[in-house]
Amino acid sequence: MRHTNSEILELFEGALGQLQTPEEPEYLYAPIIYSMSGGGKRLRPVLLLITAEAFGGSVEEAMPAAMAVEIFHNFTLLHDDIMDNADVRRGKPSVFARWGGNVALLSGDAMLITAYKHLARVAAPVLPRVMQLFGDMALEVCEGQQYDMDFEHKAEVSVEEYMLMIERKTSALLSGSAMIGATMAGAADEDIKKIYRFATELGLAFQLQDDMLDSYGDEALGKKIGGDILEGKQTYLMVQAMNRATEAQREVLRTTHLRDDLTAEQKIATVKALYDELAVKHATEQQIEIRFDRALALLETLSIGVERTANLREFARNLIGRRR
Amino acid sequence: MRHTNSEILELFEGALGQLQTPEEPEYLYAPIIYSMSGGGKRLRPVLLLITAEAFGGSVEEAMPAAMAVEIFHNFTLLHDDIMDNADVRRGKPSVFARWGGNVALLSGDAMLITAYKHLARVAAPVLPRVMQLFGDMALEVCEGQQYDMDFEHKAEVSVEEYMLMIERKTSALLSGSAMIGATMAGAADEDIKKIYRFATELGLAFQLQDDMLDSYGDEALGKKIGGDILEGKQTYLMVQAMNRATEAQREVLRTTHLRDDLTAEQKIATVKALYDELAVKHATEQQIEIRFDRALALLETLSIGVERTANLREFARNLIGRRR
Repeated sequence: MRHTNSEILELFEGALGQLQTPEEPEYLYAPIIYSMSGGGKRLRPVLLLITAEAFGGSVEEAMPAAMAVEIFHNFTLLHDDIMDNADVRRGKPSVFARWGGNVALLSGDAMLITAYKHLARVAAPVLPRVMQLFGDMALEVCEGQQYDMDFEHKAEVSVEEYMLMIERKTSALLSGSAMIGATMAGAADEDIKKIYRFATELGLAFQLQDDMLDSYGDEALGKKIGGDILEGKQTYLMVQAMNRATEAQREVLRTTHLRDDLTAEQKIATVKALYDELAVKHATEQQIEIRFDRALALLETLSIGVERTANLREFARNLIGRRR
Repeated sequence: MRHTNSEILELFEGALGQLQTPEEPEYLYAPIIYSMSGGGKRLRPVLLLITAEAFGGSVEEAMPAAMAVEIFHNFTLLHDDIMDNADVRRGKPSVFARWGGNVALLSGDAMLITAYKHLARVAAPVLPRVMQLFGDMALEVCEGQQYDMDFEHKAEVSVEEYMLMIERKTSALLSGSAMIGATMAGAADEDIKKIYRFATELGLAFQLQDDMLDSYGDEALGKKIGGDILEGKQTYLMVQAMNRATEAQREVLRTTHLRDDLTAEQKIATVKALYDELAVKHATEQQIEIRFDRALALLETLSIGVERTANLREFARNLIGRRR
């Protein structure tokens, strides 16, 4: 029997609710439970489970791998918050803020190990291949984070470099999850390659949308606008703007967030005025569209017939969240 | 064909020399090569390989697991150096000192993932069990590190608590390595339990000896004396001394390292005078002896016959490095 996407999410939340850690040492394990129960959309495990079912696999069999990718994802957030000095995660104090850097570091390590402990429960015949996919995916995420940090000290980041970074930092976990789900279900190699590309394109669209919402999101929805701009962060909007700007405009884009004589609002307004002038919002929307369409088109080329891909299609639509 | 211990070390160094990482991003991968080529005695992989051979397994088959434990060990050092603010590792700048905390954090994560990538090459039939042993071992090491950090803020650490901490922080990696080696060679459950206890006792003796050398080592051998005393660190000597001291002596033990009116030499002399008075050196030597003897005695109870344990015996003697 196949499930709806919301049934799959429910099944996953049920499995996650069973997650147990030893009680002691408290500072090693309490942060794990704290960060795993902090909400989140469970996108990666849900994608993994949907993909497994689409290819005829079972949710039950794929569940240990789904747990592993979700724990891994939360581990990366935990360590990212140390590197970014981030005090808030999903509206709550980050582990870093609540317990300090050393606790966040070590409990993060324990989380990564815990992810692999769940992975170890994958059925023996597919375990070697699943471990390989998981390891490649995990390293790509680290690479993406490193490139992202490198960009902070880089005068110029090209659009291509930026896309390669987010392909690792954001897409890799989605594409890895989809490949693991397909592999566990015994999908054909050709289909696994396609599902990988589907999730890669979807992940890129997702990240670009996230970048755009930072500048053009709806404050009424509780989204604080302009955080990336104030941090001088490289985003798709920024690298596109730099790409299109005159030398004088580039200087403004590079330096506005550093100016002492402007309020936060003025800085945001200054940069957004340039974004508007350079039409980067439109360019970003277009790019999201292209990636999203490519992702959906790939689903139609799978050998399994289009009716089996309905849940994947719905997942994609919910993720990019609009129109169609 | 069975190998001598030094042949096994050579084979391991050969395999390690083949370790490759991508070139980019440089700050993610260069620290991995840097820390893996920084020397070290390769105790854990050598123990794993010796154990595998003792039970009739092959060095070649066990090599991926040996790589995994050595990479894991170096990963723990890398992250420990962040937590301890340690600038020097094996006589060279630590990754933390050379590249900073964020690079050490993230390249450490990549190292842990790399350890699992090597583990994934273990033969499929034993992979699930080996992953389980590896995961348990890895979590125990994290627990040990957390208890060690907890002890810094603890007024009183009992001898029992201290032993439980080092059983995790130091012994777990040795006992885990030995168990993995035995498991891969198809050893009987009873033998695996015994080899676990052998390596646990050996690890305890090793850690107590390390504690003792900090206060009673030979400066002529290049060992700097008193580092633990100056840091006010919990060691076997300190917890034993606290256990035996009068209230007045305990106050001295607790506070000497914090005093501004004493030079480093005077602090060390003050604490060592108390250690001498309380005969903790003798107590520590005795404990090392007991653990070491227990370890060797366990080898004689294995089902494989005593001549197959010669390399394990030699490994133990070299580790504790004396007399016998």
